[in-house]
Amino acid sequence: MLSKNNIKYIRSLNLKKFRQKYNNFVVEGDKIAQEMLRLKNIEIENIYALPSWVETNDKLLKLQREKLIPVSETELKKISSLKSPNDVLIVSKMLSDAFDPEDVENEISLYLDGIQDPGNMGTIVRIADWFGIKTVFCSLDCVGLYNSKVLQATMGAFLRVNVIELPFTKLKNEFPKLPVYGTVLSGENIFETTLEKKGIIVIGNEGKGISKEVLNQIDHKITIPSNADSGAESLNAAVATGIVCAIFKNANHQ
Amino acid sequence: MLSKNNIKYIRSLNLKKFRQKYNNFVVEGDKIAQEMLRLKNIEIENIYALPSWVETNDKLLKLQREKLIPVSETELKKISSLKSPNDVLIVSKMLSDAFDPEDVENEISLYLDGIQDPGNMGTIVRIADWFGIKTVFCSLDCVGLYNSKVLQATMGAFLRVNVIELPFTKLKNEFPKLPVYGTVLSGENIFETTLEKKGIIVIGNEGKGISKEVLNQIDHKITIPSNADSGAESLNAAVATGIVCAIFKNANHQ
Repeated sequence: MLSKNNIKYIRSLNLKKFRQKYNNFVVEGDKIAQEMLRLKNIEIENIYALPSWVETNDKLLKLQREKLIPVSETELKKISSLKSPNDVLIVSKMLSDAFDPEDVENEISLYLDGIQDPGNMGTIVRIADWFGIKTVFCSLDCVGLYNSKVLQATMGAFLRVNVIELPFTKLKNEFPKLPVYGTVLSGENIFETTLEKKGIIVIGNEGKGISKEVLNQIDHKITIPSNADSGAESLNAAVATGIVCAIFKNANHQ
Repeated sequence: MLSKNNIKYIRSLNLKKFRQKYNNFVVEGDKIAQEMLRLKNIEIENIYALPSWVETNDKLLKLQREKLIPVSETELKKISSLKSPNDVLIVSKMLSDAFDPEDVENEISLYLDGIQDPGNMGTIVRIADWFGIKTVFCSLDCVGLYNSKVLQATMGAFLRVNVIELPFTKLKNEFPKLPVYGTVLSGENIFETTLEKKGIIVIGNEGKGISKEVLNQIDHKITIPSNADSGAESLNAAVATGIVCAIFKNANHQ
């Protein structure tokens, strides 16, 4: 049976300050739990699962059985942040925020400048995964990766993409020669721009776009052309990221 | 002062069955309210606004003053579905679901096959607006346009794009010669496909993709190529729509 303290501890991980305090985070759901159990570089603290899930996933649990805490549906409800709890909940150590500088030197990376919406944040990590972009840097005012809505929107991509909080100036200092692209409302048509196969693509905040400090350091301002007669003001930040990544990857594939 | 019945009526419009019963829907917020007041073809029933908003928007309200019902913050809270109500709430007749067959004959339209997530639905309408796509057809099992989260995610685009519920077979019967494109996981690379400047692009459900009945009627199965080494299974439906629309529009612009 779960103790009151244990329940309180798990629920506290819904808040960033407690995630930082304990260096742990929570994921929920069958599919993502299976994915995490298959990976070797993830330090799971505990697996809270319904007996039926334990039975079905017997093989996967083999090496981590001492971390398993079987729970009843009532108990799962108490620790879950979902309206309909989903068989299994894992508490895990935060992932390493290391990245390979060679990836950044030679490939396309993203820099998220103040992305606030958890759905956008997670979807962008998922986009990076799809297009084989290994590194996503974020400004310190982005919504955190370990927010449960962000994790959910990544659809597991957070396990494969390196997401690193870093002020833009530090990134620029470390990679001074990399070209920096930024999506703005009135830049060069992205379809008519020469897109290198390495560089940093900056994605701005949903409402305010790219911040002044970062905008000053952009070498190529690019725009997704609109065909609207009037009215349309912008694209959703994640949608714009998807379009830009697709065009970059295609330009360098040919 | 608002009567209890009035409050009950406005709140009931959060549910589809009451929207259908009264043929009315609710929008909230300063920007969208201003946009609606500027448009001529919208039949507003009532405008519920804080005195401060009325003062600031005096000119806009000129022709609709008899529809204005000033409310206090407490009253606005009672009728709003937002956590932090936003100065103004409008009850309006549903928009016409007419569309121009010539637009469909000569241009690109979308067909949404079972889109369930309100954020995706609204974002797709916003994408259509950005790329000048005038008509978005939806299967009957899509989330409804007038869901408050959908309207919010369109960022006003629902006022400019025709969104029409229609079974796919009816659409196909009406426009039998139009080429039908569909995004699938293993089709032809969209960058290497000849994309006509007219046709219907089918976007499938978030989890299940395009339904069997519709899949049978697709002439060109297209895919956004992935560069992932492993793991990534799909793109978010709205992101995929954005990428496809950008590439279609660019192909026919050159």
